[in-house]
This record gives sequence, structure tokens and C-alpha cells, in this order.
Amino acid sequence: MSAIEPVEGTHNPGREAVFDVTRYAVAAEAIVEAGRFLYQQGWSPATSSNYSARIDGEHIAITVSGRHKGQLGAGDVMVVDLAGRAVQSACRSSAETRLHTILYEVFPDVGAVLHTHSVKATVLSRLLTPGQPLELEGYELQKAFAGVETHESVLTVPVFDNTQDIGALAQQTRDWFRAHPEQPGYLIRGHGLYTWGKTMADCLRHVEAFEFLFECELETMRVRP
Amino acid sequence: MSAIEPVEGTHNPGREAVFDVTRYAVAAEAIVEAGRFLYQQGWSPATSSNYSARIDGEHIAITVSGRHKGQLGAGDVMVVDLAGRAVQSACRSSAETRLHTILYEVFPDVGAVLHTHSVKATVLSRLLTPGQPLELEGYELQKAFAGVETHESVLTVPVFDNTQDIGALAQQTRDWFRAHPEQPGYLIRGHGLYTWGKTMADCLRHVEAFEFLFECELETMRVRP
Amino acid sequence: MSAIEPVEGTHNPGREAVFDVTRYAVAAEAIVEAGRFLYQQGWSPATSSNYSARIDGEHIAITVSGRHKGQLGAGDVMVVDLAGRAVQSACRSSAETRLHTILYEVFPDVGAVLHTHSVKATVLSRLLTPGQPLELEGYELQKAFAGVETHESVLTVPVFDNTQDIGALAQQTRDWFRAHPEQPGYLIRGHGLYTWGKTMADCLRHVEAFEFLFECELETMRVRP
Amino acid sequence: MSAIEPVEGTHNPGREAVFDVTRYAVAAEAIVEAGRFLYQQGWSPATSSNYSARIDGEHIAITVSGRHKGQLGAGDVMVVDLAGRAVQSACRSSAETRLHTILYEVFPDVGAVLHTHSVKATVLSRLLTPGQPLELEGYELQKAFAGVETHESVLTVPVFDNTQDIGALAQQTRDWFRAHPEQPGYLIRGHGLYTWGKTMADCLRHVEAFEFLFECELETMRVRP
Repeated sequence: MSAIEPVEGTHNPGREAVFDVTRYAVAAEAIVEAGRFLYQQGWSPATSSNYSARIDGEHIAITVSGRHKGQLGAGDVMVVDLAGRAVQSACRSSAETRLHTILYEVFPDVGAVLHTHSVKATVLSRLLTPGQPLELEGYELQKAFAGVETHESVLTVPVFDNTQDIGALAQQTRDWFRAHPEQPGYLIRGHGLYTWGKTMADCLRHVEAFEFLFECELETMRVRP
Repeated sequence: MSAIEPVEGTHNPGREAVFDVTRYAVAAEAIVEAGRFLYQQGWSPATSSNYSARIDGEHIAITVSGRHKGQLGAGDVMVVDLAGRAVQSACRSSAETRLHTILYEVFPDVGAVLHTHSVKATVLSRLLTPGQPLELEGYELQKAFAGVETHESVLTVPVFDNTQDIGALAQQTRDWFRAHPEQPGYLIRGHGLYTWGKTMADCLRHVEAFEFLFECELETMRVRP
Repeated sequence: MSAIEPVEGTHNPGREAVFDVTRYAVAAEAIVEAGRFLYQQGWSPATSSNYSARIDGEHIAITVSGRHKGQLGAGDVMVVDLAGRAVQSACRSSAETRLHTILYEVFPDVGAVLHTHSVKATVLSRLLTPGQPLELEGYELQKAFAGVETHESVLTVPVFDNTQDIGALAQQTRDWFRAHPEQPGYLIRGHGLYTWGKTMADCLRHVEAFEFLFECELETMRVRP
Repeated sequence: MSAIEPVEGTHNPGREAVFDVTRYAVAAEAIVEAGRFLYQQGWSPATSSNYSARIDGEHIAITVSGRHKGQLGAGDVMVVDLAGRAVQSACRSSAETRLHTILYEVFPDVGAVLHTHSVKATVLSRLLTPGQPLELEGYELQKAFAGVETHESVLTVPVFDNTQDIGALAQQTRDWFRAHPEQPGYLIRGHGLYTWGKTMADCLRHVEAFEFLFECELETMRVRP
């Protein structure tokens, strides 16, 4: 999978600034491949989920709303600007687009964002007491997250309430990840996971690590209810 | 997968009215592909399940009884009329054929019906108190069902008792889905799921969403018995 | 998969009677394919399990001991007689060969026997009180077994204690299946499942149905401990 | 998969002694194939795990640190000596390399070592009381381990505390496996499994058998909490 490194110093003055088509194609390919994998794992069923990758400082490639994530093709990835508006496209992206773009806006080194809907993320987020984050500790696999050097650290995953008001939720998540820039993801209750990384490969590694840890937590709860 | 749109105004006066062979072939292909997927997921084991797709206002393509659903081929899909009688075929369809055709009869926009036998549908339907429906609420994935716009709605899935008297069961299900035309499926206790959609793709999305939600419910019960 | 129908009236007087090589090749191919499927499902891990198919009234094709069941090839299927002795082969079959051949001996219409080692069969057989059979009732999928017409019947699966004395166990199983010729399989505690059928396809359907039912029983126990 | 038999009497006097390149290539191929399988099973997620195979009395092929285990290629396997130092390579192997090499050092007939990170190994090792080993008894599948002839024996799997001090842990594991040369593996709490064998095929069989037994133990705990 090709790495999609952020381009520095290419901020364009105009809103409908032109983006590099090859960079779009590379980003789209990474998204299509990610979808095939994530659907296969059962983490993006029934046309749920949305994925994005950075093209440049102003443009993001993102899945078109409502598509089958295991069968993404050429026509299923569009371009939006950092405000989440479609660029050179008549397609509609997910209502949750703003939850992606706000991450690219705040963190210049974020190159990819994945939002998945697994059974484990859904159930675990519903089981936690409202207001209580998921806290993961003592797992060797925590080291799969960028910057984590030891299993003795604590990984804190906040759980936001699900809502139809995406603007408000985007604001909430921004306040949180600005305050905790070292944390790699968050959950939305009964809904799913958001995680990000410098490259799509990093981001996929984060999804895998989160799903592993969610399963560990649930398995422990099954055995020790 | 090709969409199979219902043809309006092609009702034929005679019982053995002729159907369009190309439309049959397209419907059969959609059924064969659906079977490969559903078997792979473990939702149609041991030659269980039956699938159908509408050919026109009078004819339905449906799986021949007792075939391996992951290995369906050219000879495993036959044609029946709306009363469930074989048309131009010496094969026998499932005893449950009437549960399919009654849906096509009542809803002119139904294009596909899938009946699956998963472990989750089987176990969940046996665990519920007789007479009590399954109620699903607060899951983002409820939006995968046509017409559902928010996770705050309640999805009600009735559970009918299993029986060898398919005629009576067909009547029962018809009374129910006529009263609740917005609901996308029902369970038969210890047996499986029936769901439908305008196209086979819609119908498969419904199966995936139901299986996801059944797994969520069971996982929650495992952890909080 | 080619059906392997028993040949009647070909009993040979001599012990080392000649068998038809093409019938051996067909039986071996069915075994190799069954292994690929059963290993893939996780029901024959770590070189466990053994499979057989009838060649004629006197000869059985059976897996060579200790082979990887997902990677069976030309050299991994041998021939034994009804007493379990190797025929035209320097290979060694499983210590449990007699549990296979006794079935072919007693039931002239048995064409295939599969012995698998799944987690579910292992755990379920250990959880049942010694002397208590597994009783399955009210499952639609019971109809997957030859001769079962309704979910209202009871399927009784005896659980024999595991032992290193295969001769004694073979005797025990024979007494049981002669007394219950309509029952399609049995368990050995902490060990696995034996099931059989007229053809390999029937036998594979039985394995799938048993695994489905074992999973249903365990899932129910998880939720209602 | 080619067997990698240890070469006797090829101890070289110099530290940077030359190794046979063909033997390295064969070992690397076995590692790449093992990775594809183990990742597919979900036992090496998120770039976790490390695998090794013996080249000769002084050299070990081992995975380069941090690589995707399902996508290992030519550049992802390096060579280390028995002290864990890189030979003819600028790459870095895992911090846990010493846990591999100490096994090759002590047991001349060990040809492969696999370290995996499954959910089951992680959760089970955390659930056991510190100081208490996992004891497995009465499982037919225990016979998958070299030298085990009956299910009536007891398989003891010690659980070491996880630590960042790999030198100390290597010492601990050596004391244990020298005292128990017949036991085929150990766990590190919240981290994973180490197992070994004469050939890579033996070692993979051990991983499969361990994972099967871990799942059996957890399934039993789920049903009888």
C-alpha cells in the first residue's frame, strides 16, 4: 500500500483550489484496499463505515455515502475540502464527513482516518457507563499504537454519545483530541470507532489493535461477568 | 449484482403465462451469488435456507429444495408462480415457498426475499419469551434498513412459532407485515430469518444488518446474563 | 463431489482381494476435498481427525495417520479392509481405524465416515454429565439429517468416554448404533465427533448440521449459564 | 514446507562466521509462509509477533521488527547469531530476539520458534492467578504435541509476567524449559505464546494445538463462569 505523505506548503488561496489528480488516485486506491480488508473482517457491514485519506493540505479523498465497503470501485471515492464540501463532484459524502476533516484540519501529520462499525465496538461502547471512558492497560498490543513504548501505560478511549447533530459531535471530538493529542482513537456509543494515522498502513494497524483490545475486554467480561 | 426491478403492467391472464427468459437468468444469477456469500458467512449451512427473486408480476425465481447453498449452479434455481406452483419445471421448491410468494403478492415493490438459518437467529429466537418480539434500539446500524433515518427509532422483529403447517404460518406473517409494512423482517423460532428488499443488494444488506444486530444482542446477553 | 455408491455383490473370498483402482481414486479425491473444507472450518486442527470412504464391500479408503488435513495429497489416502488392516500399502492408518470400519461392516449403505475434532464438540462433550447424552430438540436444522422430517423430533447424541482401548470403544459404539440405527452420530468426550452417510456429501452435511447444533447449545449455555 | 534440519558439526570459530545462503533462503521462505497463515488466523495482528528458524548451529533467520506478518516479503527476514546480534544486516530484529535464540542455544534439535499474540493467549494469561500455570488435561488434542501419547497426561504451560527487561525474562524461561524439556511452550501475561519444534511444520502444529486448547478453556469458563 502506498504511503500518502502530507504535502507541506501547498495551501491554495482559492476554495476550489486544484488538487493533484495522481495524489487523489493513490489516496483512492488506499481507501478501496482498506475497504476490502475491513469489510472482510466484518468491521464494515451493510454499507456502514466511511474512510478517508489526505490528498494535500486542503483536499481529502473520502468514500461516497452508502456504498458497499467490500466492493468499492473507481466511482466510490470523491474529494472534499477541509470544511467537508464536495470538490469537483456531484456525489454526496457521509453525513459524518466533518468528523474526518476536523482531524486533518487540527493535525497536519494525519494522513488517513478510518471509521468502522464492528460488533465489538458497538457492544462495548453500549456497556460502558455514560461518561466513563474505556481504559486499556497491561496489554502488550498497546505498543501497536504510534508512540507507545510499554504495555505499562494506560490507553484511554473516550465514548461520545451518538447523535444526529454531527456538527456538535465534531466540536466535542475536537476539544477532546486537542487535549489528548497522543491518544489514537475514540468510540461513539452504539455506533463505532474513529482512528487515524500518518499513513493508511498506520491507520489500519490502529484499527486492528483496537479490535484486538475490544475483543480482549469483551472476552474477559464474558468469563468474569 | 444486477438490480431486478419489478415490471409493472405485465400481468398475464393464463396460469402458465410466459415469462421473460433473460429476466429469469438475471434473477437466477443474483440468487447463485447470494448463496455463495450467505453460505460463506455460515448463515445457510447444511443445505438449509431458500432464496428468491422476482421475475415479473406473476413469476418468481426460487432455489430448488435441498441444494447446497454455497454451490448453487445453473440447475438449482426454478420458477414458481405467486401461488407457489412450479412453472416449466419438474423440480420441487422448498415447502416454505409460500412464505416467499406471499410477500411478492402483497408488496409489488419487493424484488427479493432471503431466508437464512444462522446460529444467532436460531438461538436468539429460542431465548425470547414466546409472544415477545425482539426490539432493537439505539444502534447506528438500524439505518441500514430502508427508510430508517435515525438510531433513535425502535426496530421490532416478531418471532413466529415454528410449525410444519406452512399455510397457516404464511397467513400469520401476512397479517403481520400488512399491519407493519415498514418493518424489514421476521424470525421463526429455532429456525431462521426472513427479510426482503427492492433489489437483491438491498435484501443482502438487510441480512447483514440483522446478523450484526443479533450478534450485538447475544454478545450483550453473554456479558450481562 | 462424486457420489460413492456401495457396490453390492462384490464380496471377494480372499483377504487380499483386489479392489477397483478407479473407485479408490474417486474415494481418495472425496476425502482430500473433505479435508480441505473441514480444516478450513477449524474442525480438524493440528493433524487431528481421520476420514474414510467406501470403495466396495471389502475395502475402505482412509487417511494415513498424522497428516495435515487441510493439505492432503495423493500420498495421504490408503486402503484398509473391514478389519482395519492395510491393503497394498506400507502406510499406517489411525489407531481409530476400527471405529470407521465397524460402521461399514454393520451398515451396508454407509458410504463415508468423518471424524472431526472441533472446539465445540470437545467442550460440549466435557460439559455433559458422564452417562448423559446430548439431546437436541426444536431445531429446524435437525431436518438436515437423513430421515428427519420435523423439528419436533428429538436427536440423541451419546457421549462415550475417551480411551486408549479402541477395540473396546468400537464394541461399545457398535452396540449403540445397532440399537439406534436412525441416529446419525456420536461424540467421544474431550475428543470429537463421528458421523456417517450414504455419500460423502451427506456425511459433510451431517458434520455441518452437528457443528451448527453444538454451537447453538453452547451459545445458549453462555447466555443462560 | 521444507523441513529445516539442524546441521551438526558446523560450528564456526569466528563470530561473523559465514552461513549457507540457500539454507537462509529456505528458512526465510518457511517464515514468510508461516506469517501468512498465522496472520490469517488472527494470531499475529497489528505487526505483532516474531518468528524464527534455524539456519545452522550458529545462525538463526528471524523476522525484522515491526513488519506486517501477513505481508512478509524478501526484505523482512534477517539473520542473527545465537547471542541475538545482526549478521550481514543493517536491520533491527525484535527486542525479544533473545527469547528465540536462547531456545536454539539450549536445544540443538529445535529448528523453529514461533511467538504469537492471539486474543485467547492474551486473555487466558491475564485471567490466571499470578504464579499459577495453565494445566491442560483430558484433551485428545494434547497428542498433537511431540512425545505426548495419551490424553490422560497433564500439559503444564507456565505464565511469565510481562516485562520490558527481556534479558531477565530470557533467563527465567531458560531455567524453566531446562527443567521441563518435554513441555512445548509458555505464555507471557497479557502478551502471547512462545512455542518451538524440530521443523516449522511441527512448530505450526503446536501453535494450532495451543490455540485450540486455549479456546476450549475459555469456552468452558464462559459457560461455567
